Amino acid sequence: MSLVAVGSVAYDGVETPHGKVERMLGGACTYIALSASYFTHVKIVAVVGEDFAKEDRNLLDSRNIDTSGMEQLAGKTFFWSGVYSADMNDRTTLRTDLNVFAEFDPKLPEHYKSQPYVLLGNIQPALQHSVKRQMNGTRLIGGDTMNYWINDFRQELEETIRHWDFLLINDSEARLLSGESHLGRAAEKIMAMGPRTLIIKRGEYGALLFHARGHFAVPGYLLDQLQDPTGAGDCFAGGFMGYLAEEGVDPATGPIDAKILGRAVVYGSVMGSFCCERFGVDRFRTLTRSEIDKRFEEFRNLTSF
Amino acid sequence: MSLVAVGSVAYDGVETPHGKVERMLGGACTYIALSASYFTHVKIVAVVGEDFAKEDRNLLDSRNIDTSGMEQLAGKTFFWSGVYSADMNDRTTLRTDLNVFAEFDPKLPEHYKSQPYVLLGNIQPALQHSVKRQMNGTRLIGGDTMNYWINDFRQELEETIRHWDFLLINDSEARLLSGESHLGRAAEKIMAMGPRTLIIKRGEYGALLFHARGHFAVPGYLLDQLQDPTGAGDCFAGGFMGYLAEEGVDPATGPIDAKILGRAVVYGSVMGSFCCERFGVDRFRTLTRSEIDKRFEEFRNLTSF
Repeated sequence: MSLVAVGSVAYDGVETPHGKVERMLGGACTYIALSASYFTHVKIVAVVGEDFAKEDRNLLDSRNIDTSGMEQLAGKTFFWSGVYSADMNDRTTLRTDLNVFAEFDPKLPEHYKSQPYVLLGNIQPALQHSVKRQMNGTRLIGGDTMNYWINDFRQELEETIRHWDFLLINDSEARLLSGESHLGRAAEKIMAMGPRTLIIKRGEYGALLFHARGHFAVPGYLLDQLQDPTGAGDCFAGGFMGYLAEEGVDPATGPIDAKILGRAVVYGSVMGSFCCERFGVDRFRTLTRSEIDKRFEEFRNLTSF
Repeated sequence: MSLVAVGSVAYDGVETPHGKVERMLGGACTYIALSASYFTHVKIVAVVGEDFAKEDRNLLDSRNIDTSGMEQLAGKTFFWSGVYSADMNDRTTLRTDLNVFAEFDPKLPEHYKSQPYVLLGNIQPALQHSVKRQMNGTRLIGGDTMNYWINDFRQELEETIRHWDFLLINDSEARLLSGESHLGRAAEKIMAMGPRTLIIKRGEYGALLFHARGHFAVPGYLLDQLQDPTGAGDCFAGGFMGYLAEEGVDPATGPIDAKILGRAVVYGSVMGSFCCERFGVDRFRTLTRSEIDKRFEEFRNLTSF
C-alpha cells in the first residue's frame, strides 16, 4: 500500500539571509515524497528533463521512492529561483523556467492506479483532477493549491476539490477561496465545497485543522536556526498524509479519529520544521525517524499544560 | 492575600467594524482588575477625575475590587479614543487626553503594602518602580510595557524590570527590547535583564511562555465574534497573574512549576478571548467562573493530540 504523490520536481536557486545556492533539487513533489517517505511507501508522478542528475535520482531511491511515474522528456527540468526577505516571511521570484514542466500531463503507471492514498501537490487543478480520474479504489485523496488557481481557475479548482477528502492551504488562501475573513467561517464554507477536512497552514504561527466534529490548533515550532523555508509547506503535507497512510485510515469505515488527525497535523509541523533547518532538501539526507518522533514529543511538551 | 494592580483607569471611545461607543469605562488597570478578580482578591492603584461615574465604581465593587488606592482628583478622568482597522489588527489613536492621569503618582494605602502579588500595568517605568519600592514582602511581581518606553525610556525601563519576576510583552516589543529578531534568542536576552519568566503575546496567534527550564506555546482562540480587542492584553495579564495568585505560588520556595505557568498562560488566553466578545468591559458584567473554566477545558481539547 503506497501513497501516490503528484507535482513538480524542479531545480531551485534560493537566496536567504543565511546563504545562497545557485541550483539544487527542489519542487513540491520532491519535498512531499521525501517527507512522506518516513511514514509510508511513496510513488511519485512528475516530469523531469534530460539534465536531471543521477545523484538526485539516487536521493529519491535512497528513500525507497518509486520513480517509475517520473517521466523524463527531451529538454530541461523546471527551474525556479527566488530571494527571501530579511525575516523570511516574504519571497520574490527571480526566475521561472517551466521547461518540460509546461508539457506535464500526468500518466500513471498501472501499478500506481490501485494505491489507496493520493496527495496532489500544487499544480493546475485540471491536472490534479486527471490524476484522480486515473485512480481506482482511492481511500483518501487531498492536496494543495495556491492563490493563482483560486483567482484565475476558480471553476476548475472547485470542480477538482469537490472530490477531495482534505485540502491544505494557508490562511490568506483560505480567506481568498471562501470570501470570509474569519477563519472559522472560512473553514465552514470551504468544507461545504467538498473536502471534509481542512488544514490551514500559518507558517511560524503553526496550523489549524478543521473537520466535521471540531477543530485543532498547533503552534509553530521555534527553530534554533531557520536556513531556508522553501518546501516547508510541502513537507508539512507529506508528513500529514504520510502519517495518515501509516495509520491506514479509511474514511469509508467511519470518520477519521480526531486524535489521529491532530497527530497528523503535528507530524506535518515536525516535517515542515526539519525542512527549514537546511537549504533545499539537505536535511533529508541525514534525518532519521527517531529524530522525527523525538520532535513530535517535543511538540507534546511544548503544548501540554 | 491580594493582588495589587496598578495602571490607568480611563474612559475610552472605540470604533471597530462591529460598532462604535463614544465613551465607556476602560484603562489597563480596569481590565487587569476585572480579569484577575475571577481568581483572587484585587486592590487597585489608580487615579480618576471628578467625572468618574458611580456606576463604574459599582462595577468594580461588584467584583469585590478594593478601590481605596484609587485616588480621585479635581479634573477629568484620562480619555482615549481610537478606531480599529477592518481586520482589527491595527488601530489609530484619535484622541489622548491625559487629564488627571498626567499627575498620577501612585501612593499605596498602608494595607496594600504587605500584599504578596503585584501586577504593574503599562505606565511610565519610574512609576512602576515607585510602586515596587513602596511594597514590603512582595512574593511575585511583574508587568507590562510598550514600545514608547522601550524606545525613549530604555535605561529607566531596564532599571525597573531588573526587579521583576515576569514581563508580558508582544512579539514586536520583545524584538525591540532585545534587538533580536529570533524570539527564542530575544527571550534569552530579556530574561538576562531580570525577569526569569517572559510571556510573549501574539494576538490572534496565541502566546509563548519562556522560563529557565523551557518554553510553552498556546494557540489563539478562534472567537465566534470579535467585537472589540481593546483591553485583551490587560485581561490576559490579569488572568495570568490572577491564576498564579490563586495557586499561591511563591518563587522563594523554588522555581514555579512549569505546568502551573502553562496553565496561567492558558487562563490569560481565556480572559483575553472573553474580553474581545463585547465592547469595553461589557463581557465582565455577566461572565462567570464556570464559563472561564469551561473555555479553559476547550483550550485543552483544542490543543491535545
